[in-house]
Amino acid sequence: MSLAVIGTLAYDSVETAHDSRENALGGSAMYCAVAAAPHFKPRLVGVVGGDFKAEHVELLRKRGICMEGLETVEEGKTFRWGGRYEPDWNTRHTTYTDLNVLEHFDPKLPEAYRDSRFVFLANAHPAVQLKALEQVEAPAFSVADTMNLWIDVARPDLDALMQRVDALILNDEEARMLTGENNLIRAAQRVLELGPKVVILKKGEHGAFIMGEGLHFSLPAYPVTEVVDPTGAGDCFAGGFMGHIASVGDAAPETLKRAMLHGTVAASFCVEGFSVETIANRTSADYDERYADLQAIVTL
Amino acid sequence: MSLAVIGTLAYDSVETAHDSRENALGGSAMYCAVAAAPHFKPRLVGVVGGDFKAEHVELLRKRGICMEGLETVEEGKTFRWGGRYEPDWNTRHTTYTDLNVLEHFDPKLPEAYRDSRFVFLANAHPAVQLKALEQVEAPAFSVADTMNLWIDVARPDLDALMQRVDALILNDEEARMLTGENNLIRAAQRVLELGPKVVILKKGEHGAFIMGEGLHFSLPAYPVTEVVDPTGAGDCFAGGFMGHIASVGDAAPETLKRAMLHGTVAASFCVEGFSVETIANRTSADYDERYADLQAIVTL
Repeated sequence: MSLAVIGTLAYDSVETAHDSRENALGGSAMYCAVAAAPHFKPRLVGVVGGDFKAEHVELLRKRGICMEGLETVEEGKTFRWGGRYEPDWNTRHTTYTDLNVLEHFDPKLPEAYRDSRFVFLANAHPAVQLKALEQVEAPAFSVADTMNLWIDVARPDLDALMQRVDALILNDEEARMLTGENNLIRAAQRVLELGPKVVILKKGEHGAFIMGEGLHFSLPAYPVTEVVDPTGAGDCFAGGFMGHIASVGDAAPETLKRAMLHGTVAASFCVEGFSVETIANRTSADYDERYADLQAIVTL
Repeated sequence: MSLAVIGTLAYDSVETAHDSRENALGGSAMYCAVAAAPHFKPRLVGVVGGDFKAEHVELLRKRGICMEGLETVEEGKTFRWGGRYEPDWNTRHTTYTDLNVLEHFDPKLPEAYRDSRFVFLANAHPAVQLKALEQVEAPAFSVADTMNLWIDVARPDLDALMQRVDALILNDEEARMLTGENNLIRAAQRVLELGPKVVILKKGEHGAFIMGEGLHFSLPAYPVTEVVDPTGAGDCFAGGFMGHIASVGDAAPETLKRAMLHGTVAASFCVEGFSVETIANRTSADYDERYADLQAIVTL
């Protein structure tokens, strides 16, 4: 089996009510890959600038992530994003977005990645996501993430992408925006009419559900008592989700349901620290323990 | 076994973005009793005015609810409440509150109710709730609901009540207000320090969880696609919850978990119609079917 994760790497500056970090390791594909790694070693595809630190490449490599697909534009700068959270965590303000090398990101999958069976298209322009997907010879299960910006400015590209992926993963706000449906169950049903066979709808602290033909499973979030920084939680959810699927080697309903728990566990570790400070330091035993905790909380 | 439900009966005028009802049957104990009835016939305690319609007494009696504890103040008027919901359902405006006979509500349990094993103190002034509870000889499991108003204006009475009940049921907003904790898990933990052995925390469309010693179970809401009127959903949740507990005859962790599903099912029927238009017309088969649906959605 094999798992390709395509998306962004970034340096994020994040401010919360309690603390802050400047230029910390971030990016959709980075978070996803780190969260997937305890389950299955992913193949990363992304672009960074000459300023991307060797220690960060090393951190990812040490987690077992294949870095062959990391393109470095020596004369460019890594994508940078800055954000600030309100004390209630529900409102996030973007303070700046410097696309830098991301502006001309043209994903090129290494030859060795083209046989990837499982593919996660982390948040990026849907045309870029589609271009990446087209380089995979025979994906068994492909999943795309998206965001409000693309729903707004690149809807035709997103529509084309939805015809090609097996599943779409998105949050409540994005689902409402994409479908015009306020009710999330109806929104999910509408997404399924747009192409994907499966939709995963994330509701942040309120959990997530997955829907498809003969499939409907709903799960609360892991009961985290101390949120430090929610940045990357959605990408880590996707990482735990995809990592489990790749480790099992199929996308059967039972696998997808368990993958939802693994995604929830990964997201819970993510929010307990800035950047990958917490999630990159969790052992397999930590993952197993929290999975068992979560399973106990949701089992009748 | 036996279940006493003490609280309000009302005539509600409700306006939503789509429709409205004037002077429809409402009230915390009324909703709870109707939702409990398919599981276990409850004993109702409440007060109404001379304007309370015979057809409404009949409706409740036909559901199997014991009406011996209904006090009628012939010269008074039934409690009336008016509310309006914003299109997103998350904001409710109270347009008027006419306490009427409720102002001097002094609950008197009929002699035959005093051996009740299970007691639900639906939303009312905590001093009134305590007075009712004290008339029950040996409750096996007593649960109280409350609201922001009492947390604000009757905290000492509420503190005294919390020392006496086995469980407190409240929503997210109330839990935050009662404990000063924004994080709901910590808020629930704090409630347990205030007296109750068990806390049930309702999150509306985001489900509910229950916590106590050796007990932690979390559940999403039933996926309702068409909300008509959310009024009474929390009381119906309590009704399904208490009805199941009374029908089993214990409050063991397994019973409480299943009771959470029954509460969720009852709340879902409630929101599908104004007043009790939907929930009072559901058969046992309807309940069983939806319980099975919900169980499937939350089972790994």
